[in-house]
Amino acid sequence: MAKQPELDDFRVPYFESKKNGKFSLDDFDPAAKPFSTGSKDADRARLSEIGAKLDSLQECLHAQQKRRVLLVLQGMDTSGKDGTIRAVFHEVDPLGLRIVPFKAPTPTELAHDFLWRVHSQAPAAGELTIFNRSHYEDLLVPTVLGALDEDAFDVRCRHIRHFEELLADSCTTIIKCMLHISKDEQRTRLQARIDDPTKHWKFDVSDLDARKQWDQYQVAYRDALAATSTEYAPWYVIPADSKTHRNLMVAELLLRTFEALKLEYPPAKESLKGIVVE
Amino acid sequence: MAKQPELDDFRVPYFESKKNGKFSLDDFDPAAKPFSTGSKDADRARLSEIGAKLDSLQECLHAQQKRRVLLVLQGMDTSGKDGTIRAVFHEVDPLGLRIVPFKAPTPTELAHDFLWRVHSQAPAAGELTIFNRSHYEDLLVPTVLGALDEDAFDVRCRHIRHFEELLADSCTTIIKCMLHISKDEQRTRLQARIDDPTKHWKFDVSDLDARKQWDQYQVAYRDALAATSTEYAPWYVIPADSKTHRNLMVAELLLRTFEALKLEYPPAKESLKGIVVE
Repeated sequence: MAKQPELDDFRVPYFESKKNGKFSLDDFDPAAKPFSTGSKDADRARLSEIGAKLDSLQECLHAQQKRRVLLVLQGMDTSGKDGTIRAVFHEVDPLGLRIVPFKAPTPTELAHDFLWRVHSQAPAAGELTIFNRSHYEDLLVPTVLGALDEDAFDVRCRHIRHFEELLADSCTTIIKCMLHISKDEQRTRLQARIDDPTKHWKFDVSDLDARKQWDQYQVAYRDALAATSTEYAPWYVIPADSKTHRNLMVAELLLRTFEALKLEYPPAKESLKGIVVE
Repeated sequence: MAKQPELDDFRVPYFESKKNGKFSLDDFDPAAKPFSTGSKDADRARLSEIGAKLDSLQECLHAQQKRRVLLVLQGMDTSGKDGTIRAVFHEVDPLGLRIVPFKAPTPTELAHDFLWRVHSQAPAAGELTIFNRSHYEDLLVPTVLGALDEDAFDVRCRHIRHFEELLADSCTTIIKCMLHISKDEQRTRLQARIDDPTKHWKFDVSDLDARKQWDQYQVAYRDALAATSTEYAPWYVIPADSKTHRNLMVAELLLRTFEALKLEYPPAKESLKGIVVE
């Protein structure tokens, strides 16, 4: 396998307020494939290998019933959130995995603070939970629609940091991935959805409105990521024009995260020693 | 009616850490009746008057579907949490009122951070919610049992402040009452529960263990109150040896809180003007 770059090179630096944020998404090339071996077949073999490892690491997490892992996936339409989940986690035992999709908030959800519905879905002890979109939508969408001014944006970021710190202090490891595609790549993928009737269910005309606001979304993403990429809940930018690379990089990130937990099965029970089931 | 003292005199001063807290519960006499008129009958008449006002103010809150009110009730066993709810809120329309009792956490609740179950019960727009015990139990009980050291106590207090600030920033008015009784008064009330079989359901033998740790609980209460009596979620100490006084003071506090909201019915709909139903 080729020498790999550091994941830290793709970690978003933390700036408390967008007033002083210097980080730019343009620093990351969506078409880059830093974690690729150079061969698609080798990449897929490596992905399969990681999938199997994640499966057994997740069983250990589940057996321990202590730590929790939360993966947050964000990205523009067609950036590959669904595809990443399918590709990276299809070998993980569904018993220990929970996927939580966040859609536009319901009236009941809107009658509470914006983190209410999110907190209720936080992973339990032993769980690996994936947020398919997340509380970050409540930062990005209203910002682009002009419903959240700069101060309100900062307040929401502060509440998000506090919330994620609470989870982190409660045995939760949080990793957040922004699947980073180019505007050109999005055109190709949206057109493919339009041209293929079996993909129409994935397409909504409002996706074209969001595409028209591409630049505003990129700015909102930059500000949101920088204001919440903390020590306890870092953001990573995943170059995602190549699906194979995107999957592999998210998988590597997850694998290293799990390995850093140094999970072990709970100690053997002395009381079970020598027992023979009749 | 006699001149009333300031409610602020019973408000707990805020100290971020118990390391620097100077406030003492001993400064408050549990037998005091500062909000009493001097006559039990007049007190009850006033309570009934406030109850009717709270009913109509709560309807306005409900009609607006914007603001939320959260009342947190804490106190030692027999301090009168149930009795206060019954006496102060029995005239309020149950449609707009939600009482949430918190018992010892279940295994599912323990598999999450300590605020998970609490956040899920936060009031929705238009609701008046009463926490009968609360997240403060998760501060008090483990502290007295020695399961929460000083640093962990401070961390929990910080998370509580952040959580309550999130609610406050989301249209929620929070008031917290510690029903303050004397150790002698508790003896009388516990004995009454033991002596009356119809009150046995309210009694648990473990209540006597908690009574043995009275002093430790008073210290834990002092530290917990001082570390969380913020601008946006203040604590009040309610002298509660007299049930009539306790009810009246909580009612006055609620009334002033509601009045400060300056609630009004939503504006009349022009489109309804002159419509005659056939």
